Amino acid sequence: MFPGISDAELETRRQVLLDHIRSRNLNGLVLFDSSHIRYATGFTFLSTERPVIFAMGTTGDLALLVPAFERSHASLKSGIERVETYAEYPGEMHPMIFLGEMLADLGIVGRIGADADGYPGILSYRGPALGEVTGAAITLVGDFVEEMMAIKSREEIAAIRESATWCHLGHRLLQRYSLPGITEGQASVRAESEATLAMLDALGAVLESRLGSSDGVKAGYRGQIGRYSAFAHAVTGNHTFRRGDVLVSETGAPVAGYSAELERTMVVGAATDEQKRLFEHMAAAQAVALRAIRPGRTCSDVDRDVLTYFEENHLTQYWGQHTGHAIGLRDHEAPFLDVGDHTEIKPGMVFTVEPGLYVDGVGGFRHSDTVAVTKDGIDVLTYYPRDLESLTIPG
Amino acid sequence: MFPGISDAELETRRQVLLDHIRSRNLNGLVLFDSSHIRYATGFTFLSTERPVIFAMGTTGDLALLVPAFERSHASLKSGIERVETYAEYPGEMHPMIFLGEMLADLGIVGRIGADADGYPGILSYRGPALGEVTGAAITLVGDFVEEMMAIKSREEIAAIRESATWCHLGHRLLQRYSLPGITEGQASVRAESEATLAMLDALGAVLESRLGSSDGVKAGYRGQIGRYSAFAHAVTGNHTFRRGDVLVSETGAPVAGYSAELERTMVVGAATDEQKRLFEHMAAAQAVALRAIRPGRTCSDVDRDVLTYFEENHLTQYWGQHTGHAIGLRDHEAPFLDVGDHTEIKPGMVFTVEPGLYVDGVGGFRHSDTVAVTKDGIDVLTYYPRDLESLTIPG
Repeated sequence: MFPGISDAELETRRQVLLDHIRSRNLNGLVLFDSSHIRYATGFTFLSTERPVIFAMGTTGDLALLVPAFERSHASLKSGIERVETYAEYPGEMHPMIFLGEMLADLGIVGRIGADADGYPGILSYRGPALGEVTGAAITLVGDFVEEMMAIKSREEIAAIRESATWCHLGHRLLQRYSLPGITEGQASVRAESEATLAMLDALGAVLESRLGSSDGVKAGYRGQIGRYSAFAHAVTGNHTFRRGDVLVSETGAPVAGYSAELERTMVVGAATDEQKRLFEHMAAAQAVALRAIRPGRTCSDVDRDVLTYFEENHLTQYWGQHTGHAIGLRDHEAPFLDVGDHTEIKPGMVFTVEPGLYVDGVGGFRHSDTVAVTKDGIDVLTYYPRDLESLTIPG
Repeated sequence: MFPGISDAELETRRQVLLDHIRSRNLNGLVLFDSSHIRYATGFTFLSTERPVIFAMGTTGDLALLVPAFERSHASLKSGIERVETYAEYPGEMHPMIFLGEMLADLGIVGRIGADADGYPGILSYRGPALGEVTGAAITLVGDFVEEMMAIKSREEIAAIRESATWCHLGHRLLQRYSLPGITEGQASVRAESEATLAMLDALGAVLESRLGSSDGVKAGYRGQIGRYSAFAHAVTGNHTFRRGDVLVSETGAPVAGYSAELERTMVVGAATDEQKRLFEHMAAAQAVALRAIRPGRTCSDVDRDVLTYFEENHLTQYWGQHTGHAIGLRDHEAPFLDVGDHTEIKPGMVFTVEPGLYVDGVGGFRHSDTVAVTKDGIDVLTYYPRDLESLTIPG
């Protein structure tokens, strides 16, 4: 079966949510966050200033509130029978007023569980709070939804594993095209185009109903080229590759909404001794992190192990970011592999593992691999070569 | 001079913000929204769960709070001398605690103006409110910032005009490659690749420091093909073009962060009588809207004129969305050309104009043009042909 989220799994998720609101004596659930709604319903939509809102009553009855123009689309794609609409945002009557009426009709009143007390301020949206339009006491249950999302199912992990395949294709092409004299834009556009068309042709019709708005293979550098690679969050500058450059790549390829993350440090031409030294320390730190992740330990334990490696090797001054983060329907999710996050690691969690070294004037050194936590360790979903020889571009 | 935002303009913007907080007897300003920060500083950065926060005291002293790994990047690109850092998110000490300390040191205490009472919940971010970490009374000034952003300067309009040129190139290529038997993905990837590389080559080095993370020319259909074009917010399905399909395109091309919006309805092969009728009504409704926009009228007046046209021509059942929205640093901004938005239209506002007709089973009909309001009317920044003959694809 092609990777994707089955209706049975969606039903299971909603049952867990339903049990939760019942256990807290709430009279229903309201979700405003687009990832939460996608998680609960499978419905993929454009998240804009026009709210799309999910509601579930204590008998498990479901409803969506969408702008009128989304009615047919939402009915077709969500499988939810009750799709109610408001005219427009802002409209003559605010969407939140319609929501209040819909919730009253569903019996979702008095005590409501919600992922936020209103719709977030996306694209200049403004509006009243949920408590205000319903007069209800709002119990925030967003953290519960995030905790559910943190434990991936077999279907979710299969989707991320499939994504990794296409990240690999994008990365292989990116590496092949990143030659001295070529620009960042040329290498990226060519790799993304070829990998995206191959992915669409290979996965074909089964992918159609699962695509997001701008899905495909992403493969590029986001400006992390030469000395700019020392900026972990550089932005694209369309630099030209030159002999001696350190490159830090990034790739992604959503499958049914889930993406792996695959990043590699590469060098154009033979690495200098300093580049080699930093590269090997980065690779060793990543190995430390990969060994550190297993059920029963905490996220902070893993980051602490990496920091200890950096301290012992006098590299702390080059530290830049925590070890990694969860990944799934969002590119970054909680929990974080961070000394401040004491969440216990559990089977089914999926993390990026990407400790890096950042040296102003020299460059950045970071691989990112995506791993799924198993009952006694990890399954590394991304398998692109990690060694310097494989990652040296002829210069 | 190449389109972009000058330091002088950034200073003017900050002076207006400063005057505003002084006039409201506030002891300083805090901005959390990434578009607001870019507007006030010119700094382009990845907006993630790691807060980037801008502060300004009543003497005009400026500061940025960024994660430690962004220090060099922020200093280089923002031109702000005081760049303070927190270790990481979540970190052993929450970024908001660092913010509280920084604000106290800047004398931004007691009464603070802010665009929100805390950092938004981007990518699973969680944290305390601004009022909580400062003990200050928070006055929300986000609407004031949005109102400033709604009136575009000459520099901003020049950037959007430049963007329109590259939207046109993307659209021309998209139309050329959208032939029967070709897939949505093939046409879009080819048009975007060629247009993006041309844009990067043409604008060259001047663009480098102004690029966002994934900038380039976007040109595609987002699934709005054949009967799916009736879904105004369809998502990509990688459909194959067939004779008789109605297509609704969308293009964009950020220049210094500002993008025009250019969309066209096209037909593959000779249009049927019904397609012609709907196309011509859509084009007529757009002409009504273009004539309706001028200073002194309200946004709702414009939408009302379009609705009147639909009513008089018995088309109300095919109405789907309001007439348009402001556009600038964000793809959608307030105010909205909507019957519920009574904002007065003023010179310098930039709107999309895109009344549409959506017929289940037949398709969607919508052109979108981007216009700047002048002192007595509009300047239409997108000039791609609007007539059916020009928009008929050989089939």
